[in-house]
Amino acid sequence: MNGSLKIFSGRSHPHLAQKIARILDIPVGKSHVTRFSNENLMVQIDENVRGADVFVIQTSAPPVNEGLVELLITIDALRHASAERITAVMPYFPYVRSDKKDKPRISITARLMADLLQTAGADRVLTMDLHAPQIQGFFRVPVDHLQAIPIIADYLQRRDLSNHVLVAGDASEAKDVGRYANRLRLPMAIIDKRRYDDSEQAKAAHLIGDVRGKHAIIVDDEVATGGTLMEAAAFLKEQGAESVIAAFTHAVLSGTAVERVDASVIEQLVFTDTIPLQGKESKKFEVISVAEVFAKAIRRIHKGDSISDLFH
Amino acid sequence: MNGSLKIFSGRSHPHLAQKIARILDIPVGKSHVTRFSNENLMVQIDENVRGADVFVIQTSAPPVNEGLVELLITIDALRHASAERITAVMPYFPYVRSDKKDKPRISITARLMADLLQTAGADRVLTMDLHAPQIQGFFRVPVDHLQAIPIIADYLQRRDLSNHVLVAGDASEAKDVGRYANRLRLPMAIIDKRRYDDSEQAKAAHLIGDVRGKHAIIVDDEVATGGTLMEAAAFLKEQGAESVIAAFTHAVLSGTAVERVDASVIEQLVFTDTIPLQGKESKKFEVISVAEVFAKAIRRIHKGDSISDLFH
Amino acid sequence: MNGSLKIFSGRSHPHLAQKIARILDIPVGKSHVTRFSNENLMVQIDENVRGADVFVIQTSAPPVNEGLVELLITIDALRHASAERITAVMPYFPYVRSDKKDKPRISITARLMADLLQTAGADRVLTMDLHAPQIQGFFRVPVDHLQAIPIIADYLQRRDLSNHVLVAGDASEAKDVGRYANRLRLPMAIIDKRRYDDSEQAKAAHLIGDVRGKHAIIVDDEVATGGTLMEAAAFLKEQGAESVIAAFTHAVLSGTAVERVDASVIEQLVFTDTIPLQGKESKKFEVISVAEVFAKAIRRIHKGDSISDLFH
Amino acid sequence: MNGSLKIFSGRSHPHLAQKIARILDIPVGKSHVTRFSNENLMVQIDENVRGADVFVIQTSAPPVNEGLVELLITIDALRHASAERITAVMPYFPYVRSDKKDKPRISITARLMADLLQTAGADRVLTMDLHAPQIQGFFRVPVDHLQAIPIIADYLQRRDLSNHVLVAGDASEAKDVGRYANRLRLPMAIIDKRRYDDSEQAKAAHLIGDVRGKHAIIVDDEVATGGTLMEAAAFLKEQGAESVIAAFTHAVLSGTAVERVDASVIEQLVFTDTIPLQGKESKKFEVISVAEVFAKAIRRIHKGDSISDLFH
Amino acid sequence: MNGSLKIFSGRSHPHLAQKIARILDIPVGKSHVTRFSNENLMVQIDENVRGADVFVIQTSAPPVNEGLVELLITIDALRHASAERITAVMPYFPYVRSDKKDKPRISITARLMADLLQTAGADRVLTMDLHAPQIQGFFRVPVDHLQAIPIIADYLQRRDLSNHVLVAGDASEAKDVGRYANRLRLPMAIIDKRRYDDSEQAKAAHLIGDVRGKHAIIVDDEVATGGTLMEAAAFLKEQGAESVIAAFTHAVLSGTAVERVDASVIEQLVFTDTIPLQGKESKKFEVISVAEVFAKAIRRIHKGDSISDLFH
Amino acid sequence: MNGSLKIFSGRSHPHLAQKIARILDIPVGKSHVTRFSNENLMVQIDENVRGADVFVIQTSAPPVNEGLVELLITIDALRHASAERITAVMPYFPYVRSDKKDKPRISITARLMADLLQTAGADRVLTMDLHAPQIQGFFRVPVDHLQAIPIIADYLQRRDLSNHVLVAGDASEAKDVGRYANRLRLPMAIIDKRRYDDSEQAKAAHLIGDVRGKHAIIVDDEVATGGTLMEAAAFLKEQGAESVIAAFTHAVLSGTAVERVDASVIEQLVFTDTIPLQGKESKKFEVISVAEVFAKAIRRIHKGDSISDLFH
Repeated sequence: MNGSLKIFSGRSHPHLAQKIARILDIPVGKSHVTRFSNENLMVQIDENVRGADVFVIQTSAPPVNEGLVELLITIDALRHASAERITAVMPYFPYVRSDKKDKPRISITARLMADLLQTAGADRVLTMDLHAPQIQGFFRVPVDHLQAIPIIADYLQRRDLSNHVLVAGDASEAKDVGRYANRLRLPMAIIDKRRYDDSEQAKAAHLIGDVRGKHAIIVDDEVATGGTLMEAAAFLKEQGAESVIAAFTHAVLSGTAVERVDASVIEQLVFTDTIPLQGKESKKFEVISVAEVFAKAIRRIHKGDSISDLFH
Repeated sequence: MNGSLKIFSGRSHPHLAQKIARILDIPVGKSHVTRFSNENLMVQIDENVRGADVFVIQTSAPPVNEGLVELLITIDALRHASAERITAVMPYFPYVRSDKKDKPRISITARLMADLLQTAGADRVLTMDLHAPQIQGFFRVPVDHLQAIPIIADYLQRRDLSNHVLVAGDASEAKDVGRYANRLRLPMAIIDKRRYDDSEQAKAAHLIGDVRGKHAIIVDDEVATGGTLMEAAAFLKEQGAESVIAAFTHAVLSGTAVERVDASVIEQLVFTDTIPLQGKESKKFEVISVAEVFAKAIRRIHKGDSISDLFH
Repeated sequence: MNGSLKIFSGRSHPHLAQKIARILDIPVGKSHVTRFSNENLMVQIDENVRGADVFVIQTSAPPVNEGLVELLITIDALRHASAERITAVMPYFPYVRSDKKDKPRISITARLMADLLQTAGADRVLTMDLHAPQIQGFFRVPVDHLQAIPIIADYLQRRDLSNHVLVAGDASEAKDVGRYANRLRLPMAIIDKRRYDDSEQAKAAHLIGDVRGKHAIIVDDEVATGGTLMEAAAFLKEQGAESVIAAFTHAVLSGTAVERVDASVIEQLVFTDTIPLQGKESKKFEVISVAEVFAKAIRRIHKGDSISDLFH
Repeated sequence: MNGSLKIFSGRSHPHLAQKIARILDIPVGKSHVTRFSNENLMVQIDENVRGADVFVIQTSAPPVNEGLVELLITIDALRHASAERITAVMPYFPYVRSDKKDKPRISITARLMADLLQTAGADRVLTMDLHAPQIQGFFRVPVDHLQAIPIIADYLQRRDLSNHVLVAGDASEAKDVGRYANRLRLPMAIIDKRRYDDSEQAKAAHLIGDVRGKHAIIVDDEVATGGTLMEAAAFLKEQGAESVIAAFTHAVLSGTAVERVDASVIEQLVFTDTIPLQGKESKKFEVISVAEVFAKAIRRIHKGDSISDLFH
Repeated sequence: MNGSLKIFSGRSHPHLAQKIARILDIPVGKSHVTRFSNENLMVQIDENVRGADVFVIQTSAPPVNEGLVELLITIDALRHASAERITAVMPYFPYVRSDKKDKPRISITARLMADLLQTAGADRVLTMDLHAPQIQGFFRVPVDHLQAIPIIADYLQRRDLSNHVLVAGDASEAKDVGRYANRLRLPMAIIDKRRYDDSEQAKAAHLIGDVRGKHAIIVDDEVATGGTLMEAAAFLKEQGAESVIAAFTHAVLSGTAVERVDASVIEQLVFTDTIPLQGKESKKFEVISVAEVFAKAIRRIHKGDSISDLFH
Repeated sequence: MNGSLKIFSGRSHPHLAQKIARILDIPVGKSHVTRFSNENLMVQIDENVRGADVFVIQTSAPPVNEGLVELLITIDALRHASAERITAVMPYFPYVRSDKKDKPRISITARLMADLLQTAGADRVLTMDLHAPQIQGFFRVPVDHLQAIPIIADYLQRRDLSNHVLVAGDASEAKDVGRYANRLRLPMAIIDKRRYDDSEQAKAAHLIGDVRGKHAIIVDDEVATGGTLMEAAAFLKEQGAESVIAAFTHAVLSGTAVERVDASVIEQLVFTDTIPLQGKESKKFEVISVAEVFAKAIRRIHKGDSISDLFH
């Protein structure tokens, strides 16, 4: 790209945007959002962006829907302000779990999000650990899809992992656990949850594989209320696990998640900063930053270097 | 249309949807919205809509941005559920005042709204009193644009209007006041506001026309915080107005608007129910319902009858 | 932009195109239009434009519809000839007053024009004083919207303006007059026209504000036949105005406008050269050129500099 | 189609529209065009068209470009007035000979026309004898392409055609002559025109085939100025033809065509009424109406019957 | 739908099309494909389809790419022939496993297929058991996604399933096996395959869960060469399985699959007829027809009845 | 273009791609196609293409439909890999003779091809000798249309052409023969084929013009099975031609074309290498390479130089 590299930050995660900008050694671009008393937003870009190669950083964090609309308005403002190329940098993609039609007459909202971003004017998307890799196919514009698994796995590998086992909380998460297992060369186990009736909730029925006397690491792509995770941890302890920790990318931690984590048998939560903690705290949290991998990816996209090389 | 007429209501104004449905003598369609702890919405349509002529009623009301995203998801769900035609019924259109680029590098967000609705799958739009009539040109799909002025004017005409004068709070609102003036055959006056410096706020400088000893009716399309309205009323009293009331379509009444109205010299606010009051109350409020005109318009759209005939 | 800057001129206003090109110190690009005996047009670009940053200058002037089609064909030819970027420079935008649906079953033709230009291949638009600022929202491509009011106001300010008053010929034009009033710090007045019956024509009924003993300046965005303007001037004289002049951007001056102006009480018409006079002459005309502001805007668009800075 | 069949006529050929409507036994729909003094057009549809199956009849005739813009505006008005389906009926398609890029940096304007019609909102096109059959591929919407050759051939067959020969005025027209030859079972000849230098005009060099002592019928799809035709006729006489007549579909007859025809050796011109004569007259003209074939096609399109059956 | 229901069959699976048509009690529509010596295809629809509700049945079967192009051409022909609605019925969707970007610089070809179908003119898609449910989100047009699991599970349930276990051949297939397990109330096991080096092939390393002394049912969505399946079967026998059968939806069975199946320890293959066997035979095959579920779905789509009701 | 020039070759004609690359003095880009046993293709680009100006060379050759799908997948992969511009270089365009709707309810497949290429992501097309020049109008993206006639004519001119005549095998090919005739200044003749009944095949009925005692050169744009060509040659001999050769651009030579040529009266076939011979051989073949003109065109497109200059 000939245009200069510019980074703008939405209101969702300014801390991460600052970190990324610092690594790239450029300032965060000037812009401001006015929220009128009628809740309408006005986004103004306060510096010239004609011909620039602009990256807008906005993760999905509460208030989720307002953050999304803010991003769409920002992209629209940048487009009409003649930015040469606009990349939506969305470390945690909104509505990423609404990726299939598992009930009649619902929306595959992650696809709708992709369409709305393209309508607003996004030329590219940079994101991390989409719930399913197929979601990349929801976009017509190029998507660079970063992975946190190598970063988290590197972090875990600093400890002694002998006698550890990786656990998927559900058969549908078995794929992800396989990717960790391959990197860490650890055995794996899967919790077999069953629901024989639409009215009941799925419950852990069996453990496929073995955790007895071992240290279990439950892996997942995101943790929301933590309900499923707490249940899985308790079940693993029943099955004889020596200890339980969890590793995941996106720390949604909504509702009473923090209190539940603190009160649970889980000893540690290892996750990244794709979502701001917004004041949530626990001694059990280990946060690994993705700022560097995003900064590197942005520089490579700007320079036209390969992103896949970033992972080798 | 061959398909059956169905009305669905978003969560913004169920009361108005119920009223419209009652007039049309059909039930509001079954659907429900789940708001997960991570603030993601899931909209499910709970009845078959294949081939149906669907109207979704969602006005712009707090939480504004969430209401908008809910509407987009609902339309997407209906489209994939094979509705034959989807009309977004939006009594108060979101971001309607963001209709021009009066600052550098901002979004004309009302146009963006039009594009997002079309991307989600809206085939038509039914709305009321857009801030400027040009906004209808933001849409590629057909728009039916209802007017509240005839309804409000009819209501006002029930009183003795001799010795009344219509007032525009600003030169830019003079056009609307002209439309009232023509219907009510009343004289008009305009408050001339000036701002000679970007740093100051526009202030009422002169009155063009005369209100001395007369009953003033300030007219506008919407009232948000009411700040401008209160100032105008006080200024008219200074200029010798006998009394001041206000008439407008969209009662946003955000922030401390109700308290300010109650404490002000304004004697009455006449407005419609395009926006739910959500518990706001004042003895000064006179609310006129638009349910009937929307119900008639929906029936005509469904039957293929002319909407313009509705106003003659 | 990397591509070289090139300017092409349609047949509507070659004089303005020459002036702009001279200021930019580049030649007008070689092209020619063949009009066959069957009235079909063939536009041929006579120099290589691959990779170039092309600006096509075509204002709306008689023959209006042919000029429009010529522009669409020119843009199509440039696009297929691999121009990198095509900006339609339209000092007076065609069908700019057809910007709303104020009658049943008509076209909002200004929006149609925007769509046709984008279909032909326009990547941007550069225009001046659209009848309503909302029209900018009719475009999906970026629009740079220049203003003549600062230029005309500067010109007027060279005279002694004490005892002058600005007048809007109609409540619907009050907004524009407010923008002049703010710059020139002059009082304003508005002619209140009424039409109580669809069959009659709107007539000046009252004057809101005061012109007695003052020099009146009627301001507007365009003057077509001049009928409204003549009537307004006569009415102001009746109301005691000392003298009347008019200031406006776009001099359509169609039909017998010139004869009527010469015979009227109006002493002077101050306007710009966005439309060629095509031989129309009057001692009352004062023409201010917009060539410089267009040339500056084109240079800034080409270089990626801010246009909003142009007005500070 | 469920919607009722409606026919509207542009201003280009009201006589043909009336004829078609009469055959279909329905009135021409009410609409009117206002041409303001600034040459802007306003098209208003004066009856309800919601849900209707609308056919707009507008041929390409002087003023060509204005007629085209009028058609685009009419379609746009109908679309926003909620017509269910809009078919542009264009007996002579505009810019039909601009169908290839035979010079550098020109527009294939017939394709642009197709795109503009679709942008305005045409759902289908009904036309006749496109200059090349490939032009049908310029459209994404369905096109029904009627042929005049069977009608004209039927007409010619009423005379004694023994000792007649069909002639193409140019190698590039040989294809059409072949289609006539097949129907009429007549021999054919081709005028071999050559141009060995870009600066000269192509001239008849040889006759391929034989016309000596025969009655020649020159066939073509359209005649514009008639220059080519006159030359061909003179050349055929030189080559010994007994007599010369011409048969073609579209009678553009622009410039001094009528005078030239009257003064020429050609004895008769047989053509259709796809284009109005607009007062042009000659004893040599034989006009065959296409109203019936258009009426039949419209009825079949409306009823969902096959059009190809129309030609068997 | 008002238009009549019509079914057309491509050349890929005429037998299934015949079966579906027989159940629906309508004939397969008349059409034929000409394959010229240059391998170009010409598809001609031999009956009128104006206004019809057309379903084109074409599964993905060898020659795969030619079948795809044939389908695109057929849809294009139907669209230009004015079919009212075109549904592509694709029991086995082409390139369904190319649904993610698991290598640098490859195409997510299943998404490309969705786009190509929409470009050709498909208004809807009806398919079965997409490799991942997210693929439904690749379409902008409505998709009805049928499931074979209930049909296959019903079939299996006719036998005595005590002492059976369901097995996923890979962690990434665990999700599907979970859906069978829930229906059949059987335990499950997963083969843990590992590949610690890009150069090696993934190999079965462990069994998670237990098959000793049990009858194993390997489930999957499709079987191509059968290599993975054979290996899994052999591995299960090593792990002590009493017997091994396989159940899956799409029988691609390419290359030497049949010979390998016959020579393997697998006792039975239960699958559907979404893909024609094209002469492949084995005593081990048990084929269950999906014709009825497709016929029912087509009837419901045509009548506007709910498809989700079909599964309750 | 700023991005570096890169050439990739599909599997259809690697020899031509190599030749072009050698002339341009750059290597053919690294990529590979995997054809799985289920006939699905996976195209992987093996080098970074971000920001590059990519040309993909793929001609239409057996297997035709697979080659087409391979090209679409390659373009999709390049687009998602962030190539700056993708030009599809298609020396022989697929389905180029399916360019009109000469039967009811067929597809104009050449137009469909254009749409599919654009959907996949082609930004430009570079091709040669489309069957009709109108086909260029099927594209919305820029097309550079190279001509082989000048190259073939230059080649023929090296021999003594006195006493030669150019022959079109059919009236519909007369246009092309005219273009040769002009360049070579030779007389021409046309075979008049007739078919008076749909059931019979068109047969040579007469010769228009004269070949007696002359050397005939039959010219065409392509030869497929050669049937038409053989018949024409035999007919010319009957009419007294001294000898017959053929000159054409695209050597499809499908079916038993080579054997028929060898057994025929035709003495020589002069054609280009737009299509690989794939092992077909004959002493009668004279092959002229188009590699140089393609290489020059690619260099000019990349540098932004005029292509039309290439032909002067």
